[in-house]
Amino acid sequence: MSQVDNAAVSAHLSHVRIVMVNTTLPANIGSALRAMKTMGLSQLTLVAPKTYPHPDIDALAAGATDLIENIQIVETLEAAIKDCHLVFGTSARSRTIPWPLLDVRPAAVKALDAVVNHQQEIAIVFGREDRGLTNEELALANYHLTIPVNDLYGVLNVAQAIQVICYELRMSAIDIIGKETDSNANMHVTETEDMQWDEPLVTHEQMEQFYPHIEKMLAEIEFLDPRNPRLLPLRLRRLFGRIQLDRMEYHLLRGIFSRVQALNNGTWKKTEKIGQEKDHQ
Amino acid sequence: MSQVDNAAVSAHLSHVRIVMVNTTLPANIGSALRAMKTMGLSQLTLVAPKTYPHPDIDALAAGATDLIENIQIVETLEAAIKDCHLVFGTSARSRTIPWPLLDVRPAAVKALDAVVNHQQEIAIVFGREDRGLTNEELALANYHLTIPVNDLYGVLNVAQAIQVICYELRMSAIDIIGKETDSNANMHVTETEDMQWDEPLVTHEQMEQFYPHIEKMLAEIEFLDPRNPRLLPLRLRRLFGRIQLDRMEYHLLRGIFSRVQALNNGTWKKTEKIGQEKDHQ
Repeated sequence: MSQVDNAAVSAHLSHVRIVMVNTTLPANIGSALRAMKTMGLSQLTLVAPKTYPHPDIDALAAGATDLIENIQIVETLEAAIKDCHLVFGTSARSRTIPWPLLDVRPAAVKALDAVVNHQQEIAIVFGREDRGLTNEELALANYHLTIPVNDLYGVLNVAQAIQVICYELRMSAIDIIGKETDSNANMHVTETEDMQWDEPLVTHEQMEQFYPHIEKMLAEIEFLDPRNPRLLPLRLRRLFGRIQLDRMEYHLLRGIFSRVQALNNGTWKKTEKIGQEKDHQ
Repeated sequence: MSQVDNAAVSAHLSHVRIVMVNTTLPANIGSALRAMKTMGLSQLTLVAPKTYPHPDIDALAAGATDLIENIQIVETLEAAIKDCHLVFGTSARSRTIPWPLLDVRPAAVKALDAVVNHQQEIAIVFGREDRGLTNEELALANYHLTIPVNDLYGVLNVAQAIQVICYELRMSAIDIIGKETDSNANMHVTETEDMQWDEPLVTHEQMEQFYPHIEKMLAEIEFLDPRNPRLLPLRLRRLFGRIQLDRMEYHLLRGIFSRVQALNNGTWKKTEKIGQEKDHQ
């Protein structure tokens, strides 16, 4: 897992505002703030909220005081988006007239590209809990944005939708920063499966000492017949080949092989007395 | 936006179960069901929930009656995952020792690949509201799964985390179905880094016999001190947990352990004569 530059992510995401239109439940505003803060967004605009302020907002957004203080309250959607370059209207499906429609993932990519490469301000607009955005409001958007869900069941509520969209915006911001860093450093770091290890993984060269060792040990304890090994060496290679041992694990396993060899050829003996004591403890 | 085959998506996602451990708030169970249903998941297992049933669950999961009826209640995490092949434990960050750690997106890709290409059962395990999963519970997982969030603020609550993960699982299912359709159309089957197994992979339940066996063997040859095992058992779990043994490999390794035990306690002796003959050949 790559190290994320939180400050850089938040700086990019400060150009993406969440706009909630005519929200009824304060809890949804609180949940939105929490989702935003967790993902690094900071700009919330409320268009004519039904109830504001309200203790539920502060309770659900505990720890996001800076975002609460930063909330913009306006009377119309036009006022909320007037200084924006790119506006996405969220919609369960395309309405009266067909509109450029993007799933949340490509929409998030487009939004971050607009911020980073074109210094634009972005708005993502969410409608009322019960009936979303009106056709007039949707017509103010450049794109309609939809989250692919199970149509047979129905739509996400506004808090869930904001959660998913903020997550995708963060992923896009991380992605675009990663690409910038890669091209700046002009070197390619491959990260296999995003694993984080305390120990470096062993090289192919080291594994080429590992396989002869395990085979020799198995031959010595007559588990493997060197004259007729069948598929056993291949199976061991397939097994340990896909594991990608780290250095600690590598030495651990080779230590076990050596112990078994020493046990087998008599150069290591069980500490009988201590063993006995143990048994009786 | 491509047309999505909801039935196919849901069929794949029926092999991915959400497991919630010791959940306190019924509202979180209701929100989880709603998030699951919206994204096409259907299998929820509750490990010793604090309060169940409860009207909040039904209220928040309105319309997801089929999922409510389908809930499995068990007493332990082991019981919840015993027939699973691949277990992800959600974690804000890696704990005592680093574990194979995947961000939610690559984890979702891996999960759906395992379902579709290897007929596996998957579990995604979520911990308590206040303190997540214990280190012991996390050690039962093949991978730890994390959602990249703004570290400066903190973590998602369990309902939000389930929302994001169910969304990513759905996106991966849609993606993999898209690829299947493409490749069928072109008669082109690509297998990226995946092996075709001749043998089925072992379940979590079988692995729970594997670890005690290797530990007992290592204790017998005094490689592991049962009174002070240090990190060795955990390292072995981490190592073999990410390997996903197939049945043949499983029996192969357990056969080796048994041979070492027999060698150590004298019930198996090297065939001296044949050994001598070998040496002189």
